[in-house]
Parts: sequence; structure tokens; C-alpha cells
Amino acid sequence: MRVMRAEQFGIKREVEYGNKQQNEAVVQIVADVKARGDAALLDYTKQLDGTELTPQQLRVDEKTIAAAYEQVDEQFLTAIREAAQNIRLFHEKQKRNSWMDMESNGTILGQIMRPLKRVGLYVPGGKAAYPSSVLMNVIPAQVAEVPEIVMVTPPATNGQPGVDPYILVTAAEVGVTEIYQIGGAQAVAALAYGTESIKPVDKICGPGNIYVALAKKEVFGVVDIDSMAGPSEIVVLADKTANAVYVAADLLSQAEHDEMAAAIMVTTSEQLAHQVAAEVEKQLAVLPREAIARRSIDQYGAVLLVDSLEDGIRVVNDLAPEHLEIMTNDPMSILGKIENAGAIFLGDYSSEPVGDYFAGPNHIIPTNGTARFASPVNVDDFMKKSSMIYYSKQALMDNGHKIMTLARHEGLEGHARAIAVRLENEQ
Amino acid sequence: MRVMRAEQFGIKREVEYGNKQQNEAVVQIVADVKARGDAALLDYTKQLDGTELTPQQLRVDEKTIAAAYEQVDEQFLTAIREAAQNIRLFHEKQKRNSWMDMESNGTILGQIMRPLKRVGLYVPGGKAAYPSSVLMNVIPAQVAEVPEIVMVTPPATNGQPGVDPYILVTAAEVGVTEIYQIGGAQAVAALAYGTESIKPVDKICGPGNIYVALAKKEVFGVVDIDSMAGPSEIVVLADKTANAVYVAADLLSQAEHDEMAAAIMVTTSEQLAHQVAAEVEKQLAVLPREAIARRSIDQYGAVLLVDSLEDGIRVVNDLAPEHLEIMTNDPMSILGKIENAGAIFLGDYSSEPVGDYFAGPNHIIPTNGTARFASPVNVDDFMKKSSMIYYSKQALMDNGHKIMTLARHEGLEGHARAIAVRLENEQ
Repeated sequence: MRVMRAEQFGIKREVEYGNKQQNEAVVQIVADVKARGDAALLDYTKQLDGTELTPQQLRVDEKTIAAAYEQVDEQFLTAIREAAQNIRLFHEKQKRNSWMDMESNGTILGQIMRPLKRVGLYVPGGKAAYPSSVLMNVIPAQVAEVPEIVMVTPPATNGQPGVDPYILVTAAEVGVTEIYQIGGAQAVAALAYGTESIKPVDKICGPGNIYVALAKKEVFGVVDIDSMAGPSEIVVLADKTANAVYVAADLLSQAEHDEMAAAIMVTTSEQLAHQVAAEVEKQLAVLPREAIARRSIDQYGAVLLVDSLEDGIRVVNDLAPEHLEIMTNDPMSILGKIENAGAIFLGDYSSEPVGDYFAGPNHIIPTNGTARFASPVNVDDFMKKSSMIYYSKQALMDNGHKIMTLARHEGLEGHARAIAVRLENEQ
Repeated sequence: MRVMRAEQFGIKREVEYGNKQQNEAVVQIVADVKARGDAALLDYTKQLDGTELTPQQLRVDEKTIAAAYEQVDEQFLTAIREAAQNIRLFHEKQKRNSWMDMESNGTILGQIMRPLKRVGLYVPGGKAAYPSSVLMNVIPAQVAEVPEIVMVTPPATNGQPGVDPYILVTAAEVGVTEIYQIGGAQAVAALAYGTESIKPVDKICGPGNIYVALAKKEVFGVVDIDSMAGPSEIVVLADKTANAVYVAADLLSQAEHDEMAAAIMVTTSEQLAHQVAAEVEKQLAVLPREAIARRSIDQYGAVLLVDSLEDGIRVVNDLAPEHLEIMTNDPMSILGKIENAGAIFLGDYSSEPVGDYFAGPNHIIPTNGTARFASPVNVDDFMKKSSMIYYSKQALMDNGHKIMTLARHEGLEGHARAIAVRLENEQ
């Protein structure tokens, strides 16, 4: 793993959000599903996933879900249940109440919080079918009290109908039973516009390949979508007190995700820098996903030397990483200065996988520098706000003329008259 | 104004979010500004706005802003200042603190709230230059403590450099002085990617024409954007106690905005229905923006009869209006049943313009049925969240094996090993 001065490093992952050809294919699929509904959905599932389904098979039936329980092991079930509980506890603290504010003239202003009514969750198929991501999407929506949560996931890749049993069991554990075995842009279109078999949703969440991402962008506005997920990254900010073995293992836990993933250490200690670089090589050599992790480390990984932790903080804020681990003598002295980071892990024992699976905070976190403006998935993502205005007669009498002044300045006489008819009638 | 049974009404405003030609033009402009910076920006300003600017003229200078104060009247200034104060008071109540939660094993989990660093506000030019919208975008960002707020607005339409003095004064009143006289897709691209003269932002807000909307969609992901603004609507839910003159005036205050605007009354009272329809005609005849309002009323307006207020509530929730006025004997008995409405106005004196200009809640509200999933502009829109995880040694010892189980199930051995190296070392 390369070691260099921070100034010499320029992370450049030009993420291609789809080319023209992919985009045109998606626009066409979305339009077709909108126009032809189930028929188009079944056509694309046959054509793109190689699975022939009947309309009745679109939705995974209760028997299949029950049978899935026999295919998963008890240890997994125990762990996923406890993880779900932790995730629920954390997200419950995010929930906000409606509020009202009374003024002395009798006016009441407020903000009303309401759940979305129906949310669609995209769960990737194949090797990227992660039960933990089901929890991380579903539970915040449930805490928000979304009454209808529906899941789509591509059929198994063997050409037969069927969905990963671990995904089905995880969904069932958190009470999601409306599951359709469809994927790709066609699944996104079905959720956005509805078909004969699938009612449209208000929001679509969850990661997917480039076609899924482009389809979500295409239907944005018709429904809400979550953010575009890009390649993942970790930055470890460390001083000489950090444990090189821990740091290396954490860097690799990120690198093994994806060849585009970035694993970066920023440190004030030249000794640690070289220890970590050597330790990464050592651990890499025996990692099952060595090939992926090595490409990630070679292309986007680095150990960056800085003169001071202050300089290190600046580097971190520029990178705006999805995950930040602070392994220094006094992590709290750094926390307040971190402006951009999706999730911040403090101290020796807060290894990233703790957050990925178990602690409670969400693991769906803004990637690729978007922590500058975006947030981990949270309960607010599944709620909407309404303003409430109860204006008193007194307030209108006192302020009506100012409102009319502003309306008339903007050339909106109709607005002014809506006030005027009241002032004339009531005075 | 047509009166009909609610069941017979189908509001269908197929909003065209740009055609292929417009979209291709936008993609090209955005790419060009990204590549050529200021030079492209000046070229498009000349070509599309008809205004020739030097690079030095891109930013409106302090003298021009100071001079603008001499062109606005005192009454406007007084009203806009008081409106700004009300808007600030309301939005301050939305602001949220970071929080932490301690567990008995020493673990600390939390959510950190941070402002975005730099936000760009698009303000339309010409007749749609609304000072009130400047307040409604800028103040929530300021309450969020966004340190840099920058404004773009097209140059005056007379071919000379220059910006509406009311816009400049309103911006200056709330402390915004970084203002560029550029508009269209080129302005959005400049904000997203930056040019020699303009630093890139983290988020772009504010309404604009179809080119602006498409450009925002195009740069989404590089920066955050606000929602797509569509045509505006009001629904008045009224029983026989409502004042027909007030209802008609409020409907017209919406209709005068835009030929695509929708003004709809839903009522249990046939008598009121006909009174309002007649009153709308009467008031329309003397409205300055009669032509616009009439087309809106004819195309999208309606008085809808329902058998009960419960039925009326269902109609309202289906329409998911931007603005809802409840003018019934007991509005509070209805409020709790409203699921979808951007802003809710209760009682005889809460006329929509009260909220448009003065009361305090935001007037940028989800349109065209998107109140199903979207919210009025609010302080959260200018903040981001970070998760914080301080996991204790005890917690890792207790839970490490469960985390490893879940990681291994997902085939991510590197994740499991990041835990394992700690368990081995510490036990």
C-alpha cells in the first residue's frame, strides 16, 4: 500500500452515472412498464433476468416465505434479531413530534409530521443480496410509522423463480411480506407507476446496479427517491497511539467491498504509516476476497502523512468520507472539528463492521464525497412535514396591509384582494 | 366556474418535465460550462439572455446593491423586514440539536447535526422575480447556520447588465451579498461545478423555468438540489358556514399565478358551491390578471360537491394539494385526518397570502400532488446528519461474535476479521 504526503494525493474516482446508451435503455423500459404494466414487467424479467414468471408469481407467496425459515441457520437468526432491535432503538431516537407555537394575538403556527403512506425497497439479488441492508431500510420506515412497505428483488439467477431465503427471512422478521421477485429498471418503474399487480409507492429506496440507479433518477418527481449510492469509502485518522493491526483490518474491510472502494489512512506518524502499509499486505495475502481488495487498495487506497492532526482534519473534511474512524489518543478533541463525514467511529473498538451490522446507526451512508450535503438514511426520510397556519382575526387586522403591500409589489393583486375582502368585511 | 360531484372530477395535469430537445440542450450547456468555465458562462449569457458581460461584471458589485436601496419604497422595506423576522422566528423552531445516547456498557451512539457549507439560490428574473421567495430560501439556510449563501439571477431583459433592485435589496436585507447576474442552465452548471469566478456549492435551491429544472436534475448527485417545482394549487374544504366571498378570493389568488394552477373547492353545501362559483365570476371580471386566472379556472378549477366532510377529506388526501384551506365550523376536527397537504390554513382569517408573505411558515411547498412525500422548505434541507459510534471494549467483547456471524453470512470475511483481530488481541 502506497505511503505518501497528503498534499501529493488526489483521489479521483470519476464515477460514471451511466452512459447515454444505458440511459436510453432505461428511459425506454420505464416508459414501457408505465404503458403496458404487468405485461412489460414479465417481458423484461424474461429478457433481462432470464426468468419466466406468470403474473401470479410476481409476488412471493406466503408458503415460500415460511419455507425460507427452514433454510437459514439459528445463529444467523439470533444475530439478525438482535441487530434489528438495536437498529430500532437508535432510529426511535430520531423520531420527531409535530409542534405548535402560540402567539399572544391568538395565532397558532405549527409543523405537522406525518409518515409516507407506501414505500418501495429495492434489494439487489445475487451476491449483493445483503440482509443487513433490508433492516437498514425497513426499520427507519417502520419507526416513521409508514403503513405499507413493499420490497422488490430480482429472481434467482438460475432461471427459476425464487428469492434468497436469507432476504425473505430477514424481511419477514421485520414484518415485510409484500415482496415481488422483479429487479432492474422495470422494478423501479413498476413501483413508481404501478401495474395491475403492484400498487404505486410514494418513495423508492435501496441500492442497485447502474440501471436501477438511472431508473430511480428517471422517476424522481413522480415519486421520491433516496440518494444515488456510489462506491464506498473509509478514512482512518490515526496518531502514533493507533494499533496498526486494527487499522489495516478496518481498511481491508472496506476495500473488500468493491474494486472502486477507497480505503485511506491519514496519520501524523511515519512509523505507523509503514506498519499499516506492511500489515495491509500481510492481511491481504490471506483474505478470501483478496483480488477485489487488492485492486481497491492499489487504485484508490493510500496512507497519507500529515504534519499535525489539524492538517489531518482538513484532509478528512475535503474527502468527506462515508466512514471515518478516529483512532487517536483523544478522539473527542477531534470530533467537533469534523465537518464532513457520514458516520464517525471513535476509538479502538468502534471498527466499521460494528456499525455495518449491529450497533444501531444506519449503514446506508452518503458515499463518494456526498457527505458534504447528504445524511445517513434516517427516520426523516420516511416522513413529510406540513405547515399549519391558524391566523387570528386580530393578526389579520394588524398585518393585512403589510401583506397587501408585498403582494402588490409582486404584481399579484388577487393575493392582495384575498386580504382586502376580509379587512373590508370585518372592520 | 364549473360545479360537479367530486366523483366526476379527475384532475389531470400531465406536467411535462421537459422534452428531449430541451434536455439535450441542457446536457450540452452543463457539460460546456463544466469544461470551459467563465468563458462558456459569458457565451451563453450573451446568446440566451442577450446580455454581454465581462468576467468582472458576473458578480453584482457593492455599489449596485447600495444604489438599489434608492429605488425601493419605504413601505415595501418595512413589510419585508417584518416578514423576514416572522419567517426567521418560525424556522428557528425547526432547528434540531445533535444528540447522544449512552448505554450501560459504556457505548455512546449519537447523531450530529451540521449545516451545509455553501448553498446556491436561483432567483428567476423578469416578472417572476419575487422578493418573498428570496426570504423563503435564504432564511432557513441562515437558521441552519450555512456560512456561505450565494445567489444567481438572470440579467435584466433589456440587454444591459443589471438586476431587479427589489431582489437586490431583499437579499441585502438578509445579508446575502454574493450575487451573480447569470441565469438558466448555465447558472446551475456554474454553481454545481464552479468556474474561475464562482466557487462550487453543496446544494442548489430555488425555482426556475424548464431549463433550470432540467439542469438541476442533471447535476443532482454532484450537488444536492431541492425538489422540482410544478404548477401550484389550492384546495378549499368548506361547509355551509364558509364565507363565499373569502373562498372565491382565495381561489383566485391561486389561479392568478399561472394558467396551469389549480383552484378547487370541495364542499358539502350545494348553496355555497353555487355562491362561490358566481362570486368567482364576479371577482374575475375585475382582476388585473384576469386572462391568466380565467384559463386556470376554466382548465383546472372546479367546485366539487361531496356528501360529507369525511368524503371531502378523502378527496383532499387524493389531491395532496400544495395549499389546503379548511373553512368549516370546526377546522380542528378535520386537521388530524389530513394526510397529504403541504400547508394547511385553518379558519376564516388564514387566507393563503397570509402564508405566502408574512406569517412565518415557508411558502415553497410541494406542488402537483408531491405533498404525498415531500415537505415545505425547512431548516433540515440545509443541514446534514452524521452518525457517531463510540463502541466500548465491553460492548465489542459481548457482541463481536454476532457481528462476525452476520458479516460471514454476507461473504465479507474482511469485515469479520476486523472484529476478530480485536477479540484475539484483547481477550
